[in-house]
Amino acid sequence: MKFTAKQIAKKLNGKVEGNPKTFIHELAKIEEAQSGSLTFLSNPKYTQYLYSTKASIIIVKNDFKPDQDFNPTLIRVEDPYFAFTKLLEFYQILKTQRNGVSKSALIHQSINLSEDCYVGEGSVIEENSKIGKCVKIFPNCFIGQNVQIGDNTIIMPGVNILSDSIIGKSCIIHSGCVIGSDGFGFALQQDGSYKKIPQTGNVIIKDNVDIGANSTIDRATLGSTIISKGVKLDNQIQIAHNVEIGANTVIAAQSGIAGSSKIGKNCIAGGQSGFAGHLTVGNNSKIQGKAGVTSSIPENSKVQGNPAIDYSVYSKSYVHFKNLRDIEARLSKVEKDTKP
Amino acid sequence: MKFTAKQIAKKLNGKVEGNPKTFIHELAKIEEAQSGSLTFLSNPKYTQYLYSTKASIIIVKNDFKPDQDFNPTLIRVEDPYFAFTKLLEFYQILKTQRNGVSKSALIHQSINLSEDCYVGEGSVIEENSKIGKCVKIFPNCFIGQNVQIGDNTIIMPGVNILSDSIIGKSCIIHSGCVIGSDGFGFALQQDGSYKKIPQTGNVIIKDNVDIGANSTIDRATLGSTIISKGVKLDNQIQIAHNVEIGANTVIAAQSGIAGSSKIGKNCIAGGQSGFAGHLTVGNNSKIQGKAGVTSSIPENSKVQGNPAIDYSVYSKSYVHFKNLRDIEARLSKVEKDTKP
Amino acid sequence: MKFTAKQIAKKLNGKVEGNPKTFIHELAKIEEAQSGSLTFLSNPKYTQYLYSTKASIIIVKNDFKPDQDFNPTLIRVEDPYFAFTKLLEFYQILKTQRNGVSKSALIHQSINLSEDCYVGEGSVIEENSKIGKCVKIFPNCFIGQNVQIGDNTIIMPGVNILSDSIIGKSCIIHSGCVIGSDGFGFALQQDGSYKKIPQTGNVIIKDNVDIGANSTIDRATLGSTIISKGVKLDNQIQIAHNVEIGANTVIAAQSGIAGSSKIGKNCIAGGQSGFAGHLTVGNNSKIQGKAGVTSSIPENSKVQGNPAIDYSVYSKSYVHFKNLRDIEARLSKVEKDTKP
Repeated sequence: MKFTAKQIAKKLNGKVEGNPKTFIHELAKIEEAQSGSLTFLSNPKYTQYLYSTKASIIIVKNDFKPDQDFNPTLIRVEDPYFAFTKLLEFYQILKTQRNGVSKSALIHQSINLSEDCYVGEGSVIEENSKIGKCVKIFPNCFIGQNVQIGDNTIIMPGVNILSDSIIGKSCIIHSGCVIGSDGFGFALQQDGSYKKIPQTGNVIIKDNVDIGANSTIDRATLGSTIISKGVKLDNQIQIAHNVEIGANTVIAAQSGIAGSSKIGKNCIAGGQSGFAGHLTVGNNSKIQGKAGVTSSIPENSKVQGNPAIDYSVYSKSYVHFKNLRDIEARLSKVEKDTKP
Repeated sequence: MKFTAKQIAKKLNGKVEGNPKTFIHELAKIEEAQSGSLTFLSNPKYTQYLYSTKASIIIVKNDFKPDQDFNPTLIRVEDPYFAFTKLLEFYQILKTQRNGVSKSALIHQSINLSEDCYVGEGSVIEENSKIGKCVKIFPNCFIGQNVQIGDNTIIMPGVNILSDSIIGKSCIIHSGCVIGSDGFGFALQQDGSYKKIPQTGNVIIKDNVDIGANSTIDRATLGSTIISKGVKLDNQIQIAHNVEIGANTVIAAQSGIAGSSKIGKNCIAGGQSGFAGHLTVGNNSKIQGKAGVTSSIPENSKVQGNPAIDYSVYSKSYVHFKNLRDIEARLSKVEKDTKP
Repeated sequence: MKFTAKQIAKKLNGKVEGNPKTFIHELAKIEEAQSGSLTFLSNPKYTQYLYSTKASIIIVKNDFKPDQDFNPTLIRVEDPYFAFTKLLEFYQILKTQRNGVSKSALIHQSINLSEDCYVGEGSVIEENSKIGKCVKIFPNCFIGQNVQIGDNTIIMPGVNILSDSIIGKSCIIHSGCVIGSDGFGFALQQDGSYKKIPQTGNVIIKDNVDIGANSTIDRATLGSTIISKGVKLDNQIQIAHNVEIGANTVIAAQSGIAGSSKIGKNCIAGGQSGFAGHLTVGNNSKIQGKAGVTSSIPENSKVQGNPAIDYSVYSKSYVHFKNLRDIEARLSKVEKDTKP
């Protein structure tokens, strides 16, 4: 994407000072900006960079007065930081602003698509699925039978959404996700083999949920696996069957939640954390990275370790763990000293 | 999928009591059933739910006598639990019961497909692959050269099976799996860079194996990476080159096995467990979630921790780990008390 | 792939002894070779296998003299080990030696492809992307807008490379990878919900980088996520936004690096290791499998544990951890003995 200073100034309601045809193709921090970058100057302590930066365009305050020569084209606005944020959001929107249905998309005749939808090359939408307004489905996605996708949701390339899944409004499902795969349920047979337990439930993802790349969310055995409103899942997260995650909970990459566990609202879980099955995590809990939660924890818990225990207990014990060799030596000495 | 009470009663050899046109689109537990659900009543302690449930259809015993009014349509059968299980299995089969080859599937002319096979939109099958009877390949899959897939195996959408892989009968490979990617083998060069070691082996998956969504199984350097009969792998599992997993071993999500390790039969590994390379895990072993197995362990082991040690030793040590601050304080006191 | 003894001897500049029409379809170690395998005999201690192996062809030294009868066809060469290595490399090259553009590939009219490129079925290349010479893009890949891919790079099936990503020369991106997904950045709002922070940067992957199957590399918020020259990433690795990885660093499967962390050159990280955000790992460091690096570490560090500490400290402490029950008992005894 390329924009000229003139185009950007118009968007920001600002004034160009310099060549209005200067163009940029990326946004950058002032200390990292290269030729072709647009950046901004808000905090006076960064003013020095103005005179050395290779940036092509800099957004500055209306009343900014340089005291040296400089190269970039300026755009003067009321609030440079706010203007830059606006451009960031505009850029994010542009990345996914697409319309129309590719000729190579394979959409069942039962599907009604509104005009502002996008369906990319090679994407498949099966029978009886319901696609909301302004839904963007990028190339090479699979949308199975009876799937529902709410308004303004974006499905990035290569996502697989299996039958009966229900996805809310304004969600982003990133590339490579699998939504609605079978839960991992098997019954042990007398001969030591396992027989598959049918997984007939579905996945329900509520509004404003983001699911990171290559994450997997299994359908319920019966009923639904539920991801509540506003949940943010990072990349490569695994959600097992019948799990429920409360509103506005945020989970970092490569974490996994085993079957039927219920995670509360407004929780924060670090990367590579794990949760055993059939447990409850209270609201507002913090789970440190790599923690292994093996039993239920109340609201406002902060835990670490495996099995996860109270964070401050873990931290204090770990200090002494590092000295265990010394502790054992001290003990030996005392034993020797007190030998009758 | 929608079914009427009449259709279901016919399938179960049962009798409808109420409106035979009542339809359902999902199966549910009686305590969670909503309008449009079918559920069952087997254990008398759940009878209370009959009078409050929103379920549309309930399967009950032939001789069941209600003592209050209720809304759902009944289907009377000999054994409600068995009948419900039969419906679950029927539902599971229905999900994947497809025939025919999509016009947009790209199948090499050398491939012979039996009539009961399914190949979905955008799926590719390359030269010299052999596809068994009743194999179902969902959309957007890649099946490379010289791949073999046994009868009744199901390949869910978006699976990549690379050249020379051999997959047995009645397997399920879930969405997003990669089978036969190159093993991770590099030779350190004198300048600190690495040179790829060719990975010319393959992956062999035996009969009745399930592989969870987004799992990866690398081909062997030479020879084969082998997943034995009846193995069940959960989502996001990583199996490195030349690994062998014994029959009926079950591994939970996000676990990884490094190169050339051999896992025995009938083992159970918890989620996020890890196995170093070139080791052996004896049959019937249990590996706790998040354990890091760094050396070989004998049959019937039960291990936890990183490096993994005997489960009961770990548990007992962990009890004292939590009290390490106190233990150190006690030691200090004794030292002080015994100072000469 | 099938080759006759005659074809192989020609390639190796060797002499066939036996039936020149003997064909093989795989390479194998002599102790594992089956009918249809080619193997080699270099170390005399393996000579015994020659008389029992089922291999179809064996490469031997020019001056090798058997002292018993044997079945395989021989190919005599100067250096059998070197000849076998040459065949391995030849096999590796053959796997990806493809040309031409599939009819079902969907390539924007702005794209210039050299004749030696390959684009497989269902792969999409969007506007303004630049594809180098001899690039091989396997089926069902997505290459977004403004992507650059350097000469001789191989993109395996089902890879998603999102807009603005820059990939160097002679890289291999394995199946299921996602390059350039949005970084995981959200701003907490007063009502407890999160607002997405636009992710407008990109991913830069330098030359000779291998990325394992189903790995994910997020684009930077601003600027670039950078994977330096010669880096080797195993399967299912997660690289967050604005991370930088130094040249020739090797990371084993299922490891994850959180946002903005900088990993040095020539580091080696074990499987399932994790790195918190905004930290620095010095050059030549070794991170043990499952370690959780939570703060910066200097050059030449070797760490283990979570939080990760010096490897030898961890190892020594862990020895005593296993005996903590005994240590506590000894302490109790001393306490009792010294009671006044």
